[in-house]
Amino acid sequence: MSTKPSIPKGTRDFSPTEMVRRNYILDTIKTVFQRFGFQQIETPTMENLSTLEGKYGDEGDKLLFRILNSGPVIDEIKNKGSDIKVSDIAEKGLRYDLTVPFARYVAMHQNEITFPFKRYQIQPVWRADRPQKGRYREFVQCDADVVGSDSLLNEVEMVQMIQKVFQKLDINITIRINNRKILSGLAEYVGVKNEDFNMFVIIIDKIDKVGKEKTIKDLESLNLSINKILEFINLLFETPTDISASIINTDRLEKLNIIFKSCDSKIGLKGIEELEYIFSQYMDFHILDNGKLNLSLDISLARGLNYYTGAIFEVKVNDSRSTFTSSILGGGRYDDLTGIFGLPNVSGVGISFGVDRIYDVMEEMKLFDQLNLQSSTTQVMFVNFGKEEEKYCLKLLQKVRTAGINAEIYPESVKMKKQMSYADDKKIPFVVLVGSEEMKTGELTLKNMQTGEQEKISIDNLIKKIA
Amino acid sequence: MSTKPSIPKGTRDFSPTEMVRRNYILDTIKTVFQRFGFQQIETPTMENLSTLEGKYGDEGDKLLFRILNSGPVIDEIKNKGSDIKVSDIAEKGLRYDLTVPFARYVAMHQNEITFPFKRYQIQPVWRADRPQKGRYREFVQCDADVVGSDSLLNEVEMVQMIQKVFQKLDINITIRINNRKILSGLAEYVGVKNEDFNMFVIIIDKIDKVGKEKTIKDLESLNLSINKILEFINLLFETPTDISASIINTDRLEKLNIIFKSCDSKIGLKGIEELEYIFSQYMDFHILDNGKLNLSLDISLARGLNYYTGAIFEVKVNDSRSTFTSSILGGGRYDDLTGIFGLPNVSGVGISFGVDRIYDVMEEMKLFDQLNLQSSTTQVMFVNFGKEEEKYCLKLLQKVRTAGINAEIYPESVKMKKQMSYADDKKIPFVVLVGSEEMKTGELTLKNMQTGEQEKISIDNLIKKIA
Repeated sequence: MSTKPSIPKGTRDFSPTEMVRRNYILDTIKTVFQRFGFQQIETPTMENLSTLEGKYGDEGDKLLFRILNSGPVIDEIKNKGSDIKVSDIAEKGLRYDLTVPFARYVAMHQNEITFPFKRYQIQPVWRADRPQKGRYREFVQCDADVVGSDSLLNEVEMVQMIQKVFQKLDINITIRINNRKILSGLAEYVGVKNEDFNMFVIIIDKIDKVGKEKTIKDLESLNLSINKILEFINLLFETPTDISASIINTDRLEKLNIIFKSCDSKIGLKGIEELEYIFSQYMDFHILDNGKLNLSLDISLARGLNYYTGAIFEVKVNDSRSTFTSSILGGGRYDDLTGIFGLPNVSGVGISFGVDRIYDVMEEMKLFDQLNLQSSTTQVMFVNFGKEEEKYCLKLLQKVRTAGINAEIYPESVKMKKQMSYADDKKIPFVVLVGSEEMKTGELTLKNMQTGEQEKISIDNLIKKIA
Repeated sequence: MSTKPSIPKGTRDFSPTEMVRRNYILDTIKTVFQRFGFQQIETPTMENLSTLEGKYGDEGDKLLFRILNSGPVIDEIKNKGSDIKVSDIAEKGLRYDLTVPFARYVAMHQNEITFPFKRYQIQPVWRADRPQKGRYREFVQCDADVVGSDSLLNEVEMVQMIQKVFQKLDINITIRINNRKILSGLAEYVGVKNEDFNMFVIIIDKIDKVGKEKTIKDLESLNLSINKILEFINLLFETPTDISASIINTDRLEKLNIIFKSCDSKIGLKGIEELEYIFSQYMDFHILDNGKLNLSLDISLARGLNYYTGAIFEVKVNDSRSTFTSSILGGGRYDDLTGIFGLPNVSGVGISFGVDRIYDVMEEMKLFDQLNLQSSTTQVMFVNFGKEEEKYCLKLLQKVRTAGINAEIYPESVKMKKQMSYADDKKIPFVVLVGSEEMKTGELTLKNMQTGEQEKISIDNLIKKIA
């Protein structure tokens, strides 16, 4: 009896072509992480539910994949009767993000770790979200964090890494940056009560989606003076288009400076100071690197997660070749992430690349077609003409492989047409034909599969040509 | 309130040092797979239980990790009452090996795949086994298979790949090889009934563990003639030590040839023919490759899995530097693995590297210490003497990184001793000191952390020295 094969919704198989492309993105990011001194770790797929629960809000708890305990679960259910709880039958869950397992790792291994700890981690995570286009239940996260240092130099390096990665991937982007302290200063300025601060942040976070009018209404519900609201809104919505980003950033910081001074907001002024430092260090880098300036202060950037305490980052595609509007990277500084695991007062800052979205962007921009992603697939195939020829070819094959060339021989001496169509499908650029003639002279026939041209060539020259 | 951090039993965190070593093993294997024309795929972590159940025997079904359905599971339990079954609350499970998901993949994507399909796959699998030393509940498998070709050339290439990988890893091994057809021939010879064949294979498989006497007893329980049993046992237990493996192999095949001819076992003779082909092709390879001959016919090799139909492979460490006795690779040919998923008559052959065990072997043999595994960690660190110096160093840092060197600057201008001990802990080989003197002259101070030597050097020469 046969089972009709299928996979769970929201999950995917990755074909060889997709793997080569995904690996290209991951290797690019990995190389940059390593270039900046970050070290890789991995954590288990399963974490205890006590580690995961309560860390992602009520909504997150619902989206955790839980693992049924091993052993006689059904007996357990029957014993408990109607008192049964999920925690009676499931103690473990699948990793939901890389940040909480990392915090758990740092707390657990604090005595082995040298701080500041610069770590990167590339692993899949799972969320029982409703699957939809571009959103999956299993997807890869790609994080870099520094913990144990509150130096703003780390923020600068995060921005540099973002710049480097997307430059290598050939995607034009805008890095939006803000600081939670700016938001706190603005809250002070417009008179938001402490208990309303989270709501204030949520309202600002949604400005892009809901627009000016709705935002004003929402802010009024917090009992703020309408004059202050309007002044504040104008600051958020002024978007000059014909001047450079660096002038806009400077202009915005100046306006904020006036505002924070007027209400003596120490936290707001601290936010400005932090941003100014990041901008000034980044400008140097950007000029040396011949990159476009793509770091833009966006006062409305809040990002939902309320563990951020300093800088906030987000990256969007800013490229005429793409229609993509979602963010493809997020990050920020958090001052006490490991506290919940018994290690308080460890400050950290991190970024997370959305690999699946970056893949979609690159596909839309047809960037993969322009890349030479052959190196991990076969470069030359030997046609199989029969036992004699096969034996002869195996020796050549060994020479070719030892020279570092990916090579194969068709495993059976089937019809030439079938063998050639195999090479075609696998996009193998060169095919070698060795028949009795070639075995006699030692001159092989090399066929370029793209041009169709054939030439006689010795094995040594073939290696030189392809390697 | 803080949670005391812990991870589920049988799972592991991997530290930066462990990751560099694991990646070294995986990259070595990957490179060989690619060199032989294999292409990578990945399948989802979760598979439908209908895909997994019944494929690994009753024992395997018990060891599957099942995932609780999302949504109101507790309501479901209460509704069903005492009729509740595990299948009511769990539809998905974690990948148990890579072979069944691969068979599912081939059946599901048969119209996109060009056969013969040479694929490799490196992903973790999960088993609810009792954790013990060297056995984990989450571990990585590393498989290469060819499906859609019954050419024995594939077997030859599997043996070549095994040889190449362990040669690169510097582990001396023995590849034990056998063929299910030899076992069938022997069963015919000693008169095993068809229905007893599986039991016969299980008895032979355990010879190493239980010894000669117990094996004779077990075979007698199958009602075989004691004379035939003894003749057979002698064949299994003759282990000459002072002659070369190639003579032993030839000698064994000759003895089997006499036996199979005496009882006219067509399947046994076919098994000999297959092995002879593999040996002859492999000998050529082995001689060209200057490797030691390490392919040894072992008639007692059966391997439990009853889907094997042809060649069977197993690798054990054969190295004076190691005490390891478990197998570190297994594999073989199966003639109909995708049939259960609706695609019959597709022959395949594959091998699976036990990465975690290989890691343990290399650690025992202290092989990691001899390797230069620096390339993915920081090569040079700039000491941070303050804001002025930091700004100056950032530009140098950018130059160094652009030259492809992994480099970092300590993020804060804390005490020199702390910065040096950070570099020490992270095993960074070079440290650069840039103070006011160095900023004036442009000659940096480079310290070799291993020898303690210091020298004055320009940034360009520093790059030349380290790159």
